[in-house]
Amino acid sequence: MTEYDLPVVERHPYLWGNVDTPGHLPDAAGDAMSALGAVPPGPAVDPANARLPQTSLPAEVTAALTAALGAEHVDSGRSARVRRTRGFSTPDLLKLRSGDATDAPDAVLFPGSHDDVVRVLEICTEHRVAVVPFSGGTSVVGGLAPVRAGFAGVVALDLRRLDRLVGVDEISRTAVLETGLRGVAAERLLAERGYTLGHFPQSYEMATVGGYAAARSAGQSSAGYGRFDEMVVGLTVATPRGTLTLGTAPKSAAGPDLRQLVLGSEGAFGVITSVTVRVRPRPAARVFEGWKFGSFAEGAAALRALVQDGVRPTVLRLSDEAETAVNLADPDAAAGGSGSGGCLVIAGYEGDAEEVEATRAAAAERLLAHGGQNQGAEPGEKWREGRFRGPYLRDPLFDAGALVETLETATFWSNIESLKTAVSEAVQGALNAQDCANLVMCHISHVYETGASLYFTVVTRQLDDPVAQWAKAKEAANAAIRAHGATISHHHGVGTDHRETLALELGPIGIDMIKAVKSSVDPAGVLNPGILIG
Amino acid sequence: MTEYDLPVVERHPYLWGNVDTPGHLPDAAGDAMSALGAVPPGPAVDPANARLPQTSLPAEVTAALTAALGAEHVDSGRSARVRRTRGFSTPDLLKLRSGDATDAPDAVLFPGSHDDVVRVLEICTEHRVAVVPFSGGTSVVGGLAPVRAGFAGVVALDLRRLDRLVGVDEISRTAVLETGLRGVAAERLLAERGYTLGHFPQSYEMATVGGYAAARSAGQSSAGYGRFDEMVVGLTVATPRGTLTLGTAPKSAAGPDLRQLVLGSEGAFGVITSVTVRVRPRPAARVFEGWKFGSFAEGAAALRALVQDGVRPTVLRLSDEAETAVNLADPDAAAGGSGSGGCLVIAGYEGDAEEVEATRAAAAERLLAHGGQNQGAEPGEKWREGRFRGPYLRDPLFDAGALVETLETATFWSNIESLKTAVSEAVQGALNAQDCANLVMCHISHVYETGASLYFTVVTRQLDDPVAQWAKAKEAANAAIRAHGATISHHHGVGTDHRETLALELGPIGIDMIKAVKSSVDPAGVLNPGILIG
Repeated sequence: MTEYDLPVVERHPYLWGNVDTPGHLPDAAGDAMSALGAVPPGPAVDPANARLPQTSLPAEVTAALTAALGAEHVDSGRSARVRRTRGFSTPDLLKLRSGDATDAPDAVLFPGSHDDVVRVLEICTEHRVAVVPFSGGTSVVGGLAPVRAGFAGVVALDLRRLDRLVGVDEISRTAVLETGLRGVAAERLLAERGYTLGHFPQSYEMATVGGYAAARSAGQSSAGYGRFDEMVVGLTVATPRGTLTLGTAPKSAAGPDLRQLVLGSEGAFGVITSVTVRVRPRPAARVFEGWKFGSFAEGAAALRALVQDGVRPTVLRLSDEAETAVNLADPDAAAGGSGSGGCLVIAGYEGDAEEVEATRAAAAERLLAHGGQNQGAEPGEKWREGRFRGPYLRDPLFDAGALVETLETATFWSNIESLKTAVSEAVQGALNAQDCANLVMCHISHVYETGASLYFTVVTRQLDDPVAQWAKAKEAANAAIRAHGATISHHHGVGTDHRETLALELGPIGIDMIKAVKSSVDPAGVLNPGILIG
Repeated sequence: MTEYDLPVVERHPYLWGNVDTPGHLPDAAGDAMSALGAVPPGPAVDPANARLPQTSLPAEVTAALTAALGAEHVDSGRSARVRRTRGFSTPDLLKLRSGDATDAPDAVLFPGSHDDVVRVLEICTEHRVAVVPFSGGTSVVGGLAPVRAGFAGVVALDLRRLDRLVGVDEISRTAVLETGLRGVAAERLLAERGYTLGHFPQSYEMATVGGYAAARSAGQSSAGYGRFDEMVVGLTVATPRGTLTLGTAPKSAAGPDLRQLVLGSEGAFGVITSVTVRVRPRPAARVFEGWKFGSFAEGAAALRALVQDGVRPTVLRLSDEAETAVNLADPDAAAGGSGSGGCLVIAGYEGDAEEVEATRAAAAERLLAHGGQNQGAEPGEKWREGRFRGPYLRDPLFDAGALVETLETATFWSNIESLKTAVSEAVQGALNAQDCANLVMCHISHVYETGASLYFTVVTRQLDDPVAQWAKAKEAANAAIRAHGATISHHHGVGTDHRETLALELGPIGIDMIKAVKSSVDPAGVLNPGILIG
């Protein structure tokens, strides 16, 4: 099975992805859990018994929404509401596992068109009802639990009916995609026409095109295909004031690029209902390889040399010693260190056969020159096969009493090493202070000429209040990121978790720019209140 | 002489560039002018005799500015004011040639630091004085003549003292440039360190780094080096509310990308005082070649194949039949058609020798496959040598009674042919209706996977009121661009000339977003009023 033929599955309230293909911890994981002192916390509360908020929508709101969408597209049932309670961060999942669904929306709406969305926003503006766009529901930064205080209610907008590939312009190599399309569904529709977006975030099985756009997603193939915000050339946005349409050319000097203002707005400025994106022919050939480096610094220097020399594999990532040892590159396979130490680089090449070979040769020359040792195709193919399996491991880890979470940032190359050290030490310090032995792993998975991302995976034992436990580690990480002048998120977004750090990163003038735009398009403030900005 | 060792020269009120290297019309141009019916209009008015506005700054404002900057950095003299009267569009130059300097600022300020600029903006906000950033003064869209009504005066901010290369980060391949640096000066400073921006707009000899950023410049080498807005990773902006600093990583998901909001803001949101830009090693090798295609459509298909296949020459441009015939590629050399018809492509390759050869071979394969005939290095080298000479020809053309102006747009590939036809016909129609025989030439000079720019050069005879004459042609062009869904500017910007069309392009919600940001950072509305938005 490749990334082009995964099924579209229903979202579970707290289990990742396709529940028919759950993650399994390797046998050796038991020892590792014991070493961390993890104790299984008992089973999760059945979602059917979760505590829901007592609120409900005013009858006149329900009537107006029902009149607009049809009764079958307004669901106030417990199951629908619990399924749209928060996102997939570790705190989100732990809360739901503990039976806390108090952030559930009052109703779930299923608009069938852009005009439906515009009408819903009119109604919600008139009645001061908060609106959270909720399709894939994969936010890991608290982007799906808007402020309730001051509003007559909260509705979740599930865009799943906006699922069309509206058209492909084969000359311009663009496609118009509705934003309720899951990533897998979009790729399947494009594949039928011979194209691919090339956008494969780890959340690929669950995330939607709208989420990609609203939260500035970056996929595992970003070295070759770019970030999602680099693929978007046009947007249609439903706002409380009506329709905003952007994108008249690939690039323009007609004022500020408002596309880049809507991308990353996380539902605060409007609901993106379709995007026009650059597509590419489905690759005819691909090769994934592993390379081993003696240290993270050497590996980083090699990646930097590639991207600064203009040699762009499709996938390029570097695991540090800890991550290499745990072999997260193949999380469903046998655990434990590779035994040989060092830092693993995965380099993947896609395109026509000639292009793959040319890029591979140019990359190999530089990887060798920087001290890399070719590990052949096996580690590359193992990584490729397991590329979407990482999140599946979190569920059995929770069951085993582990706390596992990720966080990420980006900075310029000259700052990479010190940022990595600072964030690692901050997280370790916060967990050690709680007497929690821990493992902090890191990789680079997105590279640019001037810098790169850093992605951390943290594993420790769960305390009695694991949400509070993690909050201390996360706060320390945020402070370290800010102190080192890096960005609070490379591709996860802001949500509520990064809101305060964003305010420091952009400063009061920058934040006020965002607030001014929001006030302009959403005078009643009903769009995802409390997300992105306070 | 290469682009790396051109001098920094003083801006003349209405003559382009280095007045020691004026443009000369080729002998054959006389016949062409006669054919168009051009009659020399008599000599331009000496700038020393131009009509200046009667206004002056209130004494308290002058006192405050003098206290802030020093008397030697506040110049209310006639010469300084006339030199900062409007930009370099044809209407701008014709007005000044006729002796009309009524848009002159009341004073010219020379701040020496970012803090000086912040202080000036405070003073101007307090006293409601309009501020126009004016360094290169090369706007061709009316971006340098702000609204005067309702303000106590107008000051031009000449940033020439902000001329430092603040630093180079050799690991991250970034440089911090102050924005008063002329393009030529920035390249010279970077060259001393072994680097280049690779940004060479036709205005290169006069434009500044600040103008590049504020107006979303794209240079002739954009195929290889990208647009200026793609080079910027950080910005420092002086606003009436203080300092805004943006750019913590190459890319981020920490909310909307506010860098892309400031880029293209044309002085309406603040004064960009420094930028952090991606730099590259100075190329060791370069080759420029010419290719001939049977038609514009064939040439465009070839360019599209290159960029969609990921083959990126440094320079890639296609002249249509008319432009090829007039041989604008070498404007100072013998005029007249090449005799062989067709459409000329210039493909330039820069980098290390191996890279140049590899890209050249990959490009040649595709250019041949699309029907191109290799013309060898001569046309390429001629284009390269004359690459900044185009604007020099406008001055003698004015003297000869010709009206010459350019305009540009961009669209997606599938729309290129119909847009080119529509704009050409619109301009020709508007001039023919005024009984003005004309020549409309076009080229593609910036290519993207999904589309390209179109750049038009128009030559006709001057009527008695050439400003009104051109306005009709320009209005028709703007309408055609809008009707075909293209952008009103690929790289010239908005200024006042494109303001109304921008409002149609972005729609009321988009324009209100811009206005909201402006109100937030510039509550008194003193920053370049009337530019970008009304």
